[in-house]
Amino acid sequence: MNCESTVALAGLLRVCEPPSGALATFVQAQGPVAAWQAVLARRAPRAVVSATAARVDGVDPAALVARAQADLTVAGRAGARLIGPDDAEWPAAAMGSFAGAVARGVRGAGPPLALYVRGRPLAGLPDRAVTVVGSRASSPYGTRVAGEVAYELARAGMLVVSGAAFGIDTAAHRSALQVMRPAAASSTVSARSVTLAVLACGIDRAYPEANRDLLEFIARYGSVVSEYPPGTVPARHRFLVRNRLIAAFGAGTVVVEAGRRSGTLSTAAAAEQLGRLVMAVPGPVTSAMSVGCHLLLADRFAQLVTSAADVLAALGGAGGPAVGAGDGAAPGEDPRHPTDGLEPDAARVYDAFPTRGSCSVQDLVTESGLPASAVMGSLAVLQMHALVDQDGPLWRRVRHRNEVDGRR
Amino acid sequence: MNCESTVALAGLLRVCEPPSGALATFVQAQGPVAAWQAVLARRAPRAVVSATAARVDGVDPAALVARAQADLTVAGRAGARLIGPDDAEWPAAAMGSFAGAVARGVRGAGPPLALYVRGRPLAGLPDRAVTVVGSRASSPYGTRVAGEVAYELARAGMLVVSGAAFGIDTAAHRSALQVMRPAAASSTVSARSVTLAVLACGIDRAYPEANRDLLEFIARYGSVVSEYPPGTVPARHRFLVRNRLIAAFGAGTVVVEAGRRSGTLSTAAAAEQLGRLVMAVPGPVTSAMSVGCHLLLADRFAQLVTSAADVLAALGGAGGPAVGAGDGAAPGEDPRHPTDGLEPDAARVYDAFPTRGSCSVQDLVTESGLPASAVMGSLAVLQMHALVDQDGPLWRRVRHRNEVDGRR
Repeated sequence: MNCESTVALAGLLRVCEPPSGALATFVQAQGPVAAWQAVLARRAPRAVVSATAARVDGVDPAALVARAQADLTVAGRAGARLIGPDDAEWPAAAMGSFAGAVARGVRGAGPPLALYVRGRPLAGLPDRAVTVVGSRASSPYGTRVAGEVAYELARAGMLVVSGAAFGIDTAAHRSALQVMRPAAASSTVSARSVTLAVLACGIDRAYPEANRDLLEFIARYGSVVSEYPPGTVPARHRFLVRNRLIAAFGAGTVVVEAGRRSGTLSTAAAAEQLGRLVMAVPGPVTSAMSVGCHLLLADRFAQLVTSAADVLAALGGAGGPAVGAGDGAAPGEDPRHPTDGLEPDAARVYDAFPTRGSCSVQDLVTESGLPASAVMGSLAVLQMHALVDQDGPLWRRVRHRNEVDGRR
Repeated sequence: MNCESTVALAGLLRVCEPPSGALATFVQAQGPVAAWQAVLARRAPRAVVSATAARVDGVDPAALVARAQADLTVAGRAGARLIGPDDAEWPAAAMGSFAGAVARGVRGAGPPLALYVRGRPLAGLPDRAVTVVGSRASSPYGTRVAGEVAYELARAGMLVVSGAAFGIDTAAHRSALQVMRPAAASSTVSARSVTLAVLACGIDRAYPEANRDLLEFIARYGSVVSEYPPGTVPARHRFLVRNRLIAAFGAGTVVVEAGRRSGTLSTAAAAEQLGRLVMAVPGPVTSAMSVGCHLLLADRFAQLVTSAADVLAALGGAGGPAVGAGDGAAPGEDPRHPTDGLEPDAARVYDAFPTRGSCSVQDLVTESGLPASAVMGSLAVLQMHALVDQDGPLWRRVRHRNEVDGRR
């Protein structure tokens, strides 16, 4: 990216409080340089002029340009670079889902115009990334589970996305970093980012201050990003705005612990709106820190997960380009057949299903050669083993968890 | 019921290991006396002859009649009575669901021919009863939660059904009995059964032996039932057969704790087959005793519940003759409207739904007068609040939990 467009992006980030779908659309159509000049000259569409009025009207355009250049200098001193949609490093796949949300009129769904980045290149977002979030006031149980899940996800090659807050976020980042320490000496994996912290303040700031060292570690073995200009303070509404990015960067969002009105639930809502899988870890019903997770699960808003393996299986089965799903894995890749251990009738009914799509009980009767009563009984058994699922009057196979193994 | 038919039922229970759908159907068609005589004379349908062969062939019919009379004597000495489908006390509503399961060919779904009962009359089954089951090797957490849930259910006027086993079952029975102790002096409620133990052995036996005192308490303030003749030992397969009755007696089954291969899961499967709501209590993912619950929840086989209030709400919303549901509660009955606290657009979209059935996004656009983008955004919000649910391309209202209040 040339310097002119970098300055333009820095300026645009400076003059508009995110998110602004209107400004994002305008920049996408005009390119950052033309958009920036139009904003400075107040020649932009009304929604863009309105979104930038508070920070542009009555200010000398030259001062705004100088401020943008100063932002880049401050960011550079903090070890950060500014990337935009034209950069190779831009997480285009992760950001693409915002377009659909904007088109559906989801409020606050605008993509970032650009991102300040410290640390390793952003890569593998969202397909090889999982968002792990939760309460700041986590319990020892939640901290432990977040750590175990994040560590195992990182070990499986996934990037762990979180918000660098106290509690669950800290446990997730720290544990993901554990897999990196021995590898620091190994050139083969040292370039991979293991964890990504998304800030609700300027990239030059550490918030919470007590996590300054953690953020330095993340910048060394992972990545830190912010869409806010340097110096921005973490105001309350910025956490909610930031949460949409945390949700967008992962293929799915795992809520480890959340109180009844936890801000973490806004990340879950954002993930849902962006078409990401929402997952939640259950906990003791006697713990206030699990109430939010249980609400998500009780409403079937989230998929229950208890481990990194569950997370990977859920992501494999819930959309995304799962390798080998549907057509069956290649020979030798799936040593355990889903019907192992089933009684003969149930296995026969399972085998009578089409590989894709749904079928009726009568289809299964015809295909299996079993009487309807035996088919119905077997369907109940198969459903209990989560091998098949009912869809109104029709039935279909549930994708078997082993089918995602090829993806890791 | 006259003595002749009671002896016939005792004899039929003695000569056939339950469940036998064929024998139940035959008894229903012929009446117990004629069926018993046909069985003794080997003039019954082939399936019935086959189901009773092991205990009838080569045995003097007079000896079988004498044995049936002896069974009634032993039962009477143990304080038990034998009730059959013609008795006023027979839990016909609870047993009715077996007919559908038998018709669908569900294996092992036959109803009991008769029941030995100790204690208070069987009443309110299944509508005012909840089954609470779980692992024998329960954790302190599970024991506590089972106790709290059962106590609150009993306090809300529900009968708590369980299996008198160690662990969760014991906690459920004991806690339900707590509500009865102060009321023992009160004539108004003293006739109500607060808890029901279903045995996998003869009514004259205490299993486990250590629960003998508990079973005596249950027989005093609640009810104990068995479909097995007196003296029957609790063989392993009888627990599985018994579990279908435990499931049938409650409007829903709550699994509090269950290991990965817990027998409790068979109760959950039976409940599902009988059209009962299956519920599960989550727990720490670090506890082996919650693995079975988490499997049920992850597969969406069970509804997540964390308290007695959740159980009552789930039962109110999940079928059964919920009072006031659908047509709206009478004025004054529902002081809190489901859309209280929603933003105006979301409330407007919610109000645009038909009272019953599903509708399309376009229907909502037309009805609400809002643009499609605003409707879509509001649907996401409403879905997160569990007020609406997606059904393929259509949407429908989720019945509001307050709507069950009138039922308690």
